[in-house]
Amino acid sequence: MLDLHLLKTLFDQQKKEIFEDYFTFLRFKSIATDPEFKEEVNACADWLQTYLQNFGLNVEKWETGNAPVIFAQDLRAGPKKETLLLYCHYDVQPVDPLDEWLSPPFEPTMRDGTVYARGAVDNKGQCFYTIAAIRTVLKQLGSLPVNLKFVIEGEEESGSEGLSQLLYRKKEQLKADHLLIVDSGTEAPDTPAISLGARGLVCFNLKLTESLFDMHSGVVGGIARNPNRALCQLLSKLHDSTGRVTIPGFYDDVVEMPPNERNELDFSFDPTNFHSIYGFEPTGMEEGISAKEACWLRPTLEINGIGGGYSGPGFKTVIPKEANAKISCRLVPRQDPGTITRLVHDYLMNHKPRGLKLEIEAMAGGGRAFRTSASSKIANILAKSYSEVFGKTCKKILIGGSIPIGAELAKVSEADLLLVGVGLPTDRIHAPNEHFSLDRFEKGFLTICRALALFA
Amino acid sequence: MLDLHLLKTLFDQQKKEIFEDYFTFLRFKSIATDPEFKEEVNACADWLQTYLQNFGLNVEKWETGNAPVIFAQDLRAGPKKETLLLYCHYDVQPVDPLDEWLSPPFEPTMRDGTVYARGAVDNKGQCFYTIAAIRTVLKQLGSLPVNLKFVIEGEEESGSEGLSQLLYRKKEQLKADHLLIVDSGTEAPDTPAISLGARGLVCFNLKLTESLFDMHSGVVGGIARNPNRALCQLLSKLHDSTGRVTIPGFYDDVVEMPPNERNELDFSFDPTNFHSIYGFEPTGMEEGISAKEACWLRPTLEINGIGGGYSGPGFKTVIPKEANAKISCRLVPRQDPGTITRLVHDYLMNHKPRGLKLEIEAMAGGGRAFRTSASSKIANILAKSYSEVFGKTCKKILIGGSIPIGAELAKVSEADLLLVGVGLPTDRIHAPNEHFSLDRFEKGFLTICRALALFA
Repeated sequence: MLDLHLLKTLFDQQKKEIFEDYFTFLRFKSIATDPEFKEEVNACADWLQTYLQNFGLNVEKWETGNAPVIFAQDLRAGPKKETLLLYCHYDVQPVDPLDEWLSPPFEPTMRDGTVYARGAVDNKGQCFYTIAAIRTVLKQLGSLPVNLKFVIEGEEESGSEGLSQLLYRKKEQLKADHLLIVDSGTEAPDTPAISLGARGLVCFNLKLTESLFDMHSGVVGGIARNPNRALCQLLSKLHDSTGRVTIPGFYDDVVEMPPNERNELDFSFDPTNFHSIYGFEPTGMEEGISAKEACWLRPTLEINGIGGGYSGPGFKTVIPKEANAKISCRLVPRQDPGTITRLVHDYLMNHKPRGLKLEIEAMAGGGRAFRTSASSKIANILAKSYSEVFGKTCKKILIGGSIPIGAELAKVSEADLLLVGVGLPTDRIHAPNEHFSLDRFEKGFLTICRALALFA
Repeated sequence: MLDLHLLKTLFDQQKKEIFEDYFTFLRFKSIATDPEFKEEVNACADWLQTYLQNFGLNVEKWETGNAPVIFAQDLRAGPKKETLLLYCHYDVQPVDPLDEWLSPPFEPTMRDGTVYARGAVDNKGQCFYTIAAIRTVLKQLGSLPVNLKFVIEGEEESGSEGLSQLLYRKKEQLKADHLLIVDSGTEAPDTPAISLGARGLVCFNLKLTESLFDMHSGVVGGIARNPNRALCQLLSKLHDSTGRVTIPGFYDDVVEMPPNERNELDFSFDPTNFHSIYGFEPTGMEEGISAKEACWLRPTLEINGIGGGYSGPGFKTVIPKEANAKISCRLVPRQDPGTITRLVHDYLMNHKPRGLKLEIEAMAGGGRAFRTSASSKIANILAKSYSEVFGKTCKKILIGGSIPIGAELAKVSEADLLLVGVGLPTDRIHAPNEHFSLDRFEKGFLTICRALALFA
C-alpha cells in the first residue's frame, strides 16, 4: 500500500538521483519563443524522451513547426480502468533582464535548500516531480493503477501553437477521463489548494511607424508626429479612470458567477502578505472589485512591453522612427478569443494616430478560459491527495494566469480538467531569480504519487 | 591674396592628406555619454591636441570630470586685430541601432564620394575642415589675419557639463569679439545659409516604479498597477489635441518675433522635399503654426525614449516592475531652462500615478536659446564667405536644434554668436548611416578660409 510514510521513505532513498536528473533538465536553455535557442529546445525534448523510455513508458516524439511534443503512455492498466491525461511543458520564459540574476539562469544553484534557475518551478520543476512520481509508483507497484497518457510540450510560454495544431489529428490518442495540468500553485507553503479554472489569453504586437529613420529632435521637433507620444496617447485610451477597459463590447460576455459556484471557492486575500511579496499595495483593481475577483472573475488588458527611441545610458535627443508595444488580455469563461481579438484590433485601428502607420499583429496561441466542477472525480482525488500531503483541508481556487492549451486539450480529450501544482507567488516565475524549494519539490512528488494511488 | 581660385588649388594639393587625417579622427569611438568609451574619448582629445600643436597653434588641454576640452589659440595677429572664437566638438552620438548601419560606424567607408561614419558630419567633419582651413591659411599667409581662439569640447552630445563648469574660470582666456560655432547646416546642397540662433534644451529621465521585480500578468493582472499603463497615461497628458504642451506656464515667456526680425529670415519650406527625405508628411505642427515657425519660434516637449517590460522577439506576459521615459524640451529665447525644468517637474509630480513611485531626474547641461542680429559683423562676414563659395546669395535662418553651450560661451566671451556649417537634413546625424559628401567637406573648408581672409 503506497501510503505517505512509504512514499517519503522512497523519496529519501532516491532523492540524490532525482535532483541530479532535475538539474540536468534545468540546464537546457529551452526558450522556445526565441529562435536562437532552437537546438537547446530540441536537445531538451530528446533528453526527456530517452528519460521516460528508460523507465518503461511508451514514448512518441510529435514534431511541430517549432518545439516537438513528447507524448508518453502506459495503458497496461487495461480498458476497465480509467485514463488520466497529464500535461506539463519543458519550455521556459526568456531570462532578461539577465543582470538581475544572482546566479546564471541555466546553472541551477542551491541556496538554503532552494534551487535557483529559469524553469526551477515553471514548469520543469513541477514536470520533473511528476515524472519522478510516475517512475516511483511504476517501480514500486510493477504497474500503474490507472491508464496514463502524458503530454509534455515545448511551446507553452509562446502559445502552444504546435500542440494546438496537432490536437485534432491526435484526438484518439488523447482521449481520457481526466486531465491534470501540473503547472500551478498554492498561495502559501502550508496551504493546499487545487485550481478549478484559469483565465484565457490573447496577445498582440503593435507597431507605430512614422519615418524611415530615427530623427533629430531639434531638426524636426515640432514638425514630426512623435511615435512615442502617439503610442502613449493611443494606449492611454484603453482604460478609463476607474480601471475598466474602454473597448466597446469587451465585457459583453462577462457574466456573474452563480452563488453556488462562488461558495465552493476560497476568495480570501491577505493584502499584508501580498505587500511583503511584491512591495506595493494591491490597489490596481477596477472600482468595487476585490483582489481575488479581479484576478479570477474579471478580464484584463495589460501593456506587457513598450519601447521607442533611446533608453540606454545618458541621453539621445531623438524622435524615433517607430514605437512599439506588446499588449495582452486575460479572458474569463464565455469570452471568445476571436471576438476579443477583433474588438481590440478594431478599437486600436479606430483610434489610429493621424499621420502614422499602425500595424497590429494578433499573436497565435490565444486560448479560452475554463472551469471545472468542484464535484468532479479528478477534483475530489486531488483534493484528498493534497489534504493528506499538507495535513490540512485543501482549498479550491481559480488561477488568474492562463494555460491556453488547457481548454483545447480538455475539449479534444473529452476529459474533466484540473490544475494543480505547488508553486508559490514568491517563486518569481517569469522573472529573474526564479526558484523552487526542494521540500516543496518533495511535496509535489508526494501529491502525484498519492493521486495515482487513489485511482486504484 | 587668398581668393577662391587659389584656395581650391590649395585644397586639391592637400586633400589626400586631409582626408586621411579626417578618417583617423573619425575612427575614435568618442561617445562621451557612455562611460564604456572613456578611453577612446581621451585618446581622441590627445590626438587632436598633438595635431593642432604640430602646425603651430598653442594648445591647452583642459581636464573636466569627463571628456577634456581642447583649447587652441594663435594670438600673433596682435592686440590691434579682433579676436575670433571658434567652437566645435569631437564627441559623437551613440550608434544604436547598430544593425541598421550598412558599414561599421567607426570605420569610415566611402560610397559615391560620400563618407559614412558616426560623426562624419556632426561634428568631426565640420570640425576637421575648420582645422584644415586654419592650417592652410596659416601656412599660406605665415600668420592668421585675426586673433584665433578655438574651443573643441568633448561633451556636446551629453550637455557640455565639463566645459560649462570651466567657463567662468576661463573667462579671460575666452574673451573674443566674435563667436563662430561650426556645427549646423543648410537646407539644400546648393543653398548657402547661416544661422542667427538656435533653440535651448532641457532633458529629463523619468522612472515609474511599482514592484520589486517583474511580475506575471496572470497572477497579478487586475491587482497591480501596470507601470507601462501608468507611464502612457502620464505622458499622454503632456499635449492637448491641438499639439500644444499642456503644462501651465510653459508658453508664458514665448513672445512673438518682431516683424523686422522676421523679415531678415527665410521661412520658406518645401513639404515635398521634406517628404522625400523623411518619408512622411510634415503635419505634426501645433494648429495654425507653419513648419518653420514650429521648428524655429515654438518650444517643444518630445518623448525621446520609452521603455518598460519585454520588447524582444516573441512575447512575455509580464507586468514590469518599472517603466521609464526620456523627455526633452526645446526652448525659445526668454524661456529660462530652470523655470521650465521646475514647471515640467511639478506638472509630472502633480499628475503622479496613484500607487507608484515617480522619480524625475533633470539632466545637467540644459541651455538657453540664443539669437544674433542679422547686421552683426560676424553675420556679414560669413554671409559674404558663404555667398562666394556657393555662388548664390546667402540665406539667414534659425536652427531648431540646440547648442546648449552656445549661449553660455557667448555670455562669457562677450562675443556675437553665429552658427554655420554645411550639414544637410539628409545627412542622418544622430541616426544610423550618418554621412558627409567630400565635396561639401571642401565647401566647408572654403567658407572658413574665406571668412578668415575677410577678417584681414
